[in-house]
Amino acid sequence: MRDALRLQLTDLTDRLAETAHDVAQAMADATTSLVDRRLRLAEQVIAGDATIDARRDEIEQRAVAVLALHQPVTTDLRRAVAVIHIADDIERMGDLARHVAEAARRRHPAQAVPEEFRPLLRRLGRTATDMALKAAEVLRTGNVLLAAELDGDDDEMDRLHAEVFTVLMDPGWQHGVEAAVDLTLLARFLERYADHAVAIAKRMIHAVVGGGPDPLPI
Amino acid sequence: MRDALRLQLTDLTDRLAETAHDVAQAMADATTSLVDRRLRLAEQVIAGDATIDARRDEIEQRAVAVLALHQPVTTDLRRAVAVIHIADDIERMGDLARHVAEAARRRHPAQAVPEEFRPLLRRLGRTATDMALKAAEVLRTGNVLLAAELDGDDDEMDRLHAEVFTVLMDPGWQHGVEAAVDLTLLARFLERYADHAVAIAKRMIHAVVGGGPDPLPI
Repeated sequence: MRDALRLQLTDLTDRLAETAHDVAQAMADATTSLVDRRLRLAEQVIAGDATIDARRDEIEQRAVAVLALHQPVTTDLRRAVAVIHIADDIERMGDLARHVAEAARRRHPAQAVPEEFRPLLRRLGRTATDMALKAAEVLRTGNVLLAAELDGDDDEMDRLHAEVFTVLMDPGWQHGVEAAVDLTLLARFLERYADHAVAIAKRMIHAVVGGGPDPLPI
Repeated sequence: MRDALRLQLTDLTDRLAETAHDVAQAMADATTSLVDRRLRLAEQVIAGDATIDARRDEIEQRAVAVLALHQPVTTDLRRAVAVIHIADDIERMGDLARHVAEAARRRHPAQAVPEEFRPLLRRLGRTATDMALKAAEVLRTGNVLLAAELDGDDDEMDRLHAEVFTVLMDPGWQHGVEAAVDLTLLARFLERYADHAVAIAKRMIHAVVGGGPDPLPI
């Protein structure tokens, strides 16, 4: 029974890792569609988000079924609850990738971001995507060191994010309010996406090694 | 045993309702601090967010303890899982209220939003706050009709949000890029806050009356 439970929990974390992989691809595609004005790619990301939502629902239902059938305690219970949280994080990352693709589609065939910001957007997109891939790897392996690395990546993300705002606030900004609004939201979407990647790693480590206080007696 | 379980679940939803009430107050104070340039009030909201985070942690720990001790199934299990989700939603609403207060503090003693947008910001703040109070009421009472009302409120929120963007995109915008960036983010924070209020009501109704497919057999 205990073995069956462990197998099912591992199966769930594998499914999460796979879905994290998918939202990494979604964000990579979304930023490409944005910077290279590829409408079809943007539409693909937008349409693909429904699959990610469905995957989240399925993973949560399986996690709840594990709770009902195996009634796990301590570490196993913590892992099952972490699965439910992480499924939410991943689903939200899918939404944020969709938002980036929607910005690309909204402005098409115009460029949503001024030419000179394309490299910065590319770097933001690549950093966010790499963080999602690393989160997927943490899910697959439980690698604590990799989880710690994600904190450093998040600093890089914050640096890039600050760079966007420095540019936006420059009195020499020439691109008008519409482009400023777009860039503000895009930077926000990418920053939040990265936050969720960090949250996934933290939840996974917490579930595996504990670290918080034990559940309160009630 | 079943009675004790039910009592504990009701206690948890009451705690959630209380915390939803607190984040409603936090958003009310945050928008007031923003529109009326009240620095002390902004700082109070910012400092208060730690209490909301701690409350979320405690509620989640109690929900996990309920799972461990009572090993609930069907509706009770669904309610315990909903508690964990809703605690996350409320915590996030607290973050968003803090972000609004941080914007007020960042620009102080200057006005973060141009004079003419103060009424619009007030309406956004009031709508968001009312939605949080309604979500608290749904948690306390399980009132399905009130939960349905929140969908309508969210339409009003979307309308106000769209109004912000109409103003921002007007070629006559005179307030520069910095104010545009601030207003874009503020509108986003309030919109997300409202989304979470709607999500709380939906999760609560789903937990009480079901509605989704049963957990998958595994």
